[in-house]
Amino acid sequence: MKEKIKVSVYGATGFTGRELLKILYGHPSMQINRIYSRTHEGRNISDIFPSLKGMLDMKLTAPSTEEIDDNSDAVFLALPHETSMKYVPVLAKKKILAVDMSADYRFSDYREYEEVYGIPHSDRENLKKAVYGIPEINPEEIEKADLIANPGCYATAVILSLYPLIKEGVLKGPAFADAKSGISGAGKKLHDEFLFAKRYENITPYKVNSHRHMKEITSFLKHAAGVKWDNLVFCPHLIPVERGILANIYAPLSEELDCDELHNLYAKYYAKKLFINIYPEGKFPQTSDTVGTNNCGIGTAVSKEHNAAVIIASIDNLIKGASGQAVQNMNIAMGFGESEGMR
Amino acid sequence: MKEKIKVSVYGATGFTGRELLKILYGHPSMQINRIYSRTHEGRNISDIFPSLKGMLDMKLTAPSTEEIDDNSDAVFLALPHETSMKYVPVLAKKKILAVDMSADYRFSDYREYEEVYGIPHSDRENLKKAVYGIPEINPEEIEKADLIANPGCYATAVILSLYPLIKEGVLKGPAFADAKSGISGAGKKLHDEFLFAKRYENITPYKVNSHRHMKEITSFLKHAAGVKWDNLVFCPHLIPVERGILANIYAPLSEELDCDELHNLYAKYYAKKLFINIYPEGKFPQTSDTVGTNNCGIGTAVSKEHNAAVIIASIDNLIKGASGQAVQNMNIAMGFGESEGMR
Amino acid sequence: MKEKIKVSVYGATGFTGRELLKILYGHPSMQINRIYSRTHEGRNISDIFPSLKGMLDMKLTAPSTEEIDDNSDAVFLALPHETSMKYVPVLAKKKILAVDMSADYRFSDYREYEEVYGIPHSDRENLKKAVYGIPEINPEEIEKADLIANPGCYATAVILSLYPLIKEGVLKGPAFADAKSGISGAGKKLHDEFLFAKRYENITPYKVNSHRHMKEITSFLKHAAGVKWDNLVFCPHLIPVERGILANIYAPLSEELDCDELHNLYAKYYAKKLFINIYPEGKFPQTSDTVGTNNCGIGTAVSKEHNAAVIIASIDNLIKGASGQAVQNMNIAMGFGESEGMR
Amino acid sequence: MKEKIKVSVYGATGFTGRELLKILYGHPSMQINRIYSRTHEGRNISDIFPSLKGMLDMKLTAPSTEEIDDNSDAVFLALPHETSMKYVPVLAKKKILAVDMSADYRFSDYREYEEVYGIPHSDRENLKKAVYGIPEINPEEIEKADLIANPGCYATAVILSLYPLIKEGVLKGPAFADAKSGISGAGKKLHDEFLFAKRYENITPYKVNSHRHMKEITSFLKHAAGVKWDNLVFCPHLIPVERGILANIYAPLSEELDCDELHNLYAKYYAKKLFINIYPEGKFPQTSDTVGTNNCGIGTAVSKEHNAAVIIASIDNLIKGASGQAVQNMNIAMGFGESEGMR
Repeated sequence: MKEKIKVSVYGATGFTGRELLKILYGHPSMQINRIYSRTHEGRNISDIFPSLKGMLDMKLTAPSTEEIDDNSDAVFLALPHETSMKYVPVLAKKKILAVDMSADYRFSDYREYEEVYGIPHSDRENLKKAVYGIPEINPEEIEKADLIANPGCYATAVILSLYPLIKEGVLKGPAFADAKSGISGAGKKLHDEFLFAKRYENITPYKVNSHRHMKEITSFLKHAAGVKWDNLVFCPHLIPVERGILANIYAPLSEELDCDELHNLYAKYYAKKLFINIYPEGKFPQTSDTVGTNNCGIGTAVSKEHNAAVIIASIDNLIKGASGQAVQNMNIAMGFGESEGMR
Repeated sequence: MKEKIKVSVYGATGFTGRELLKILYGHPSMQINRIYSRTHEGRNISDIFPSLKGMLDMKLTAPSTEEIDDNSDAVFLALPHETSMKYVPVLAKKKILAVDMSADYRFSDYREYEEVYGIPHSDRENLKKAVYGIPEINPEEIEKADLIANPGCYATAVILSLYPLIKEGVLKGPAFADAKSGISGAGKKLHDEFLFAKRYENITPYKVNSHRHMKEITSFLKHAAGVKWDNLVFCPHLIPVERGILANIYAPLSEELDCDELHNLYAKYYAKKLFINIYPEGKFPQTSDTVGTNNCGIGTAVSKEHNAAVIIASIDNLIKGASGQAVQNMNIAMGFGESEGMR
Repeated sequence: MKEKIKVSVYGATGFTGRELLKILYGHPSMQINRIYSRTHEGRNISDIFPSLKGMLDMKLTAPSTEEIDDNSDAVFLALPHETSMKYVPVLAKKKILAVDMSADYRFSDYREYEEVYGIPHSDRENLKKAVYGIPEINPEEIEKADLIANPGCYATAVILSLYPLIKEGVLKGPAFADAKSGISGAGKKLHDEFLFAKRYENITPYKVNSHRHMKEITSFLKHAAGVKWDNLVFCPHLIPVERGILANIYAPLSEELDCDELHNLYAKYYAKKLFINIYPEGKFPQTSDTVGTNNCGIGTAVSKEHNAAVIIASIDNLIKGASGQAVQNMNIAMGFGESEGMR
Repeated sequence: MKEKIKVSVYGATGFTGRELLKILYGHPSMQINRIYSRTHEGRNISDIFPSLKGMLDMKLTAPSTEEIDDNSDAVFLALPHETSMKYVPVLAKKKILAVDMSADYRFSDYREYEEVYGIPHSDRENLKKAVYGIPEINPEEIEKADLIANPGCYATAVILSLYPLIKEGVLKGPAFADAKSGISGAGKKLHDEFLFAKRYENITPYKVNSHRHMKEITSFLKHAAGVKWDNLVFCPHLIPVERGILANIYAPLSEELDCDELHNLYAKYYAKKLFINIYPEGKFPQTSDTVGTNNCGIGTAVSKEHNAAVIIASIDNLIKGASGQAVQNMNIAMGFGESEGMR
């Protein structure tokens, strides 16, 4: 039986932490070494998440930048932004591979980060080295990375939907992304807006054209497609479901494409990608198709008369939009099979 | 005390029927004369809708084209399409004012109807006379009408959002409408797709760019704005809430407008419209703002850098999107106050 | 046209406040004079509840025990417990009739209050005079009251279900009440437990046999039925719906009753009660039957072989369980028709 | 690597089929051999359940009593009642171990079955041999079984809650079971009552004291505890969640027990039971604690003054209430570890 690598999880008690632990628990090549939580130090993780009872009954340790656990081969940071950049420098010094699920290392330029997040970036050095990892688009970069910035949930869905159009250069004018998300995207934040009374029986647009993921999307797409493009209008919504993101791209086209051609374009770009399902023409994914999985379903349509494309993508915001993709990135960086632990 | 007019309701046992009865029950100038249902003939309406118990305990009569109740001053048809056009000719002959909530009289050209609905139209004569009534746009036509085609729910939200842009001629290229609807829009249809198991915890796009309301929208907008325009891409979604529609319009602009100018445009168009609330800049409606009311909330935004507009409208699909607007139309046609019975 | 009395509402911005305003807005004999809120002083109520827009656009005033509005004929207190008892003495001095929706005046004995609520009662004088009002049970007391303690939501459902059994003295041993409530019962409390993430897709028992309403129920039943009885085990649950309470009573019987006899007992007790619907044998209410109404549906069953009764009651927790019953109590105390404003 | 046994699944396209496949897919000692469905013959299971895409892409075969697959070591029947008893005789003849998830083999006496299900039982022979398997109660019987009747979901929760009380003989008079179930319990039945419109925002009691599981519960408890007892009143409810059952037992006691003693009783009975979690005093399970697991959480309380017990149990209706327990039963019968495949 092969030796498993040891991994630790910082911020284990959030929703992405929980999903991560569930995946790692069954991972054939990784084994959970330590789980950290400042708030719940000393408690058992199965007290926080009773559904882990009998499966994962492990104590939570308080994290500390001074005593980084030398014993782990790799680390997942499921921390809020501004916190991750306290741990990454220490991990980098010890040469421990990290997948960071916060926003701290998602921009290559610290000025972009500071503009979007409104706080100074204290670790410009590692920022430059970090690789923003969308496994279906830049796996070669991920393979060589020592530090991986795991993309945001909206960003993942929108990037996967837009990439072939951007790369092919067939867009004309702005592309519009209308995204609908389940409430787990907000994590466990204690805020009025996330009360049952406010979310149930309600459909709510928010941060219209001002959501932070917008910059992350255009920044990566420019880098990955090697083009100058940031012509995106983005509007997210809260939908009263627990999990799932549905992202619709609406885009005028510069070239005449018919349904077949657009469909084939996506089929070609994502051929052999284990977690991407391109739907047949006329069929579109719904969130229930992907909830509980690391899959991304994509459907395509063309309005011939208006020369416009509609792309619809569905993911589980906590898995492909967070913890599943983090493991996928780690698998690639570690040289494991891309889908290990997720099938 | 003033005399009330007598109104009858055909198709009283659907969801729009129920909302209609609730409004009419408290209407100061109308009184419910007869309620019809083929399926539930002889039963009491409060057996079908227990929440009406003690309020409206009225027997349901089977409708018949042969014995149209002469006793009613006006009639609401909450019937499926293809059925309405059997009753309208008889009502027209008796000069009874009708508000038809089906799709049967929503197109002025029978060929358009036949193309969209795939069945022959058997009443071309009244079709020509029917007025498609959006009270905030063509009240003068409604005032004089003998037959009013009440708009579809998606159509209401999209038309109200798009009208100022179309009328001002500031659109460039296709406008995209992404609409999200509660499940009551499907009525009581017994279909797999409307089972709790399929709808709960799910976000589902459907009829992408092929929904019937698309034609109804462009057809009316061309007529009302007096322009040649049908550059619309429309994508509806089912959302697991009972009620509410949120419709987002995404549109490249031909002229440079800033946020202020767009906001003022909408404020001007809908000034003095009792049921339209234009939100302040930076604010957008959510469905809970309008559920249970005949209101339509509208928020506007401009992306200056991409010269594109985002308009978001919220209505209650069963009220402003159906029964409330039907009463509003009837109020206007009858010379009552526009908001009677709805405040 | 008859003169309406003027009423004020303290605590207008909670969920029960909102329901109260909706009812009062359409009340034929009451007119809203002032609405109070400490938190939202100076704001418009329709900013807090956008669905009131165009209907009730009224400013909120900060309440003060020093400047009680002399101008109101009656007052509704939709305040938390401990706050009501600050206002009641001032209102009493000015001889303004009050319906208090908090728990402050629900016990006739201050020691019972202090034991259950764990705080001293500062207004023993008015406590003695207050009438706990269940309009279907003690209307004569309500008629003469100057201060009415409006019952809790669970208490209303359980009392109405149990009263005939208690009054007839047919119970043997403990009665068990299993109640299921929608989340609006928690109001707008900002607490972890009321986050969407915690309530959605979850069924949660709480305060098993230790809920405060338990004492309120037995205290009133003893008083109203004139018996010595407090043999109640009570277990409430949170259910992911917005509104509605379903309360099931399970009780061994001391006498042999068959289904008919039990049904007839309830039919007799609640004959002519406008808001009580006794279901036919074999039929039981569900919450959707009563949501949006001031009705209470009651179904009864007997297990002959085990000599036990099952009673199931359904109410809207915000209406019959709070604001509707408050108006019903006020109607009775003011000499108006019992159902005014609610039909 | 050890050889896995081959198992087939009949009725693979229902919700319990889906859960079963998910468990079997990751089972270390079983491998899915064939999956059967009459309705979806020839289709791929991942077309029916898109969330299985990339994991289980297997063709569905039409089942036939004539051509039972000889190749399987064991079989799961996720079929409706009346259908299972067509396949069991053939499987029995071929000596293939079967776990039947229908109700067909849950009674040892065919007359009891015929009374409860209202149809003749065509396989009395195997009925006599079948073992009703609650792994925490009668594992020795399960070990030796050739045919296992897998308990119903309500029955599982109620039996586990009641067993210690029955076995100890401390009940006095009727026990009342109030159960609340998610909608997946109804499977994919196309019936009005299971439409989103009927279930959402609704709490519905049904089959009050007449549900079929009632007999199954008392029948097994008598057998397992070796007592004469069938003093149960049972009332199930539909709750608008997808998954989960919460079952509350309310019971007058014949002996004075305090909280400690009752808690210890349950702790003793279920000590070392891998899937049972007895909650500390004052704590009770909610459905989210067990959803997605094969666990059963149990909380206990005593009302000293009324000498009554309250027991609350929570399970996932599709796992511990169906497919998980089926695998647990199969594991025991096959000599595998009880929890294999479920951790």
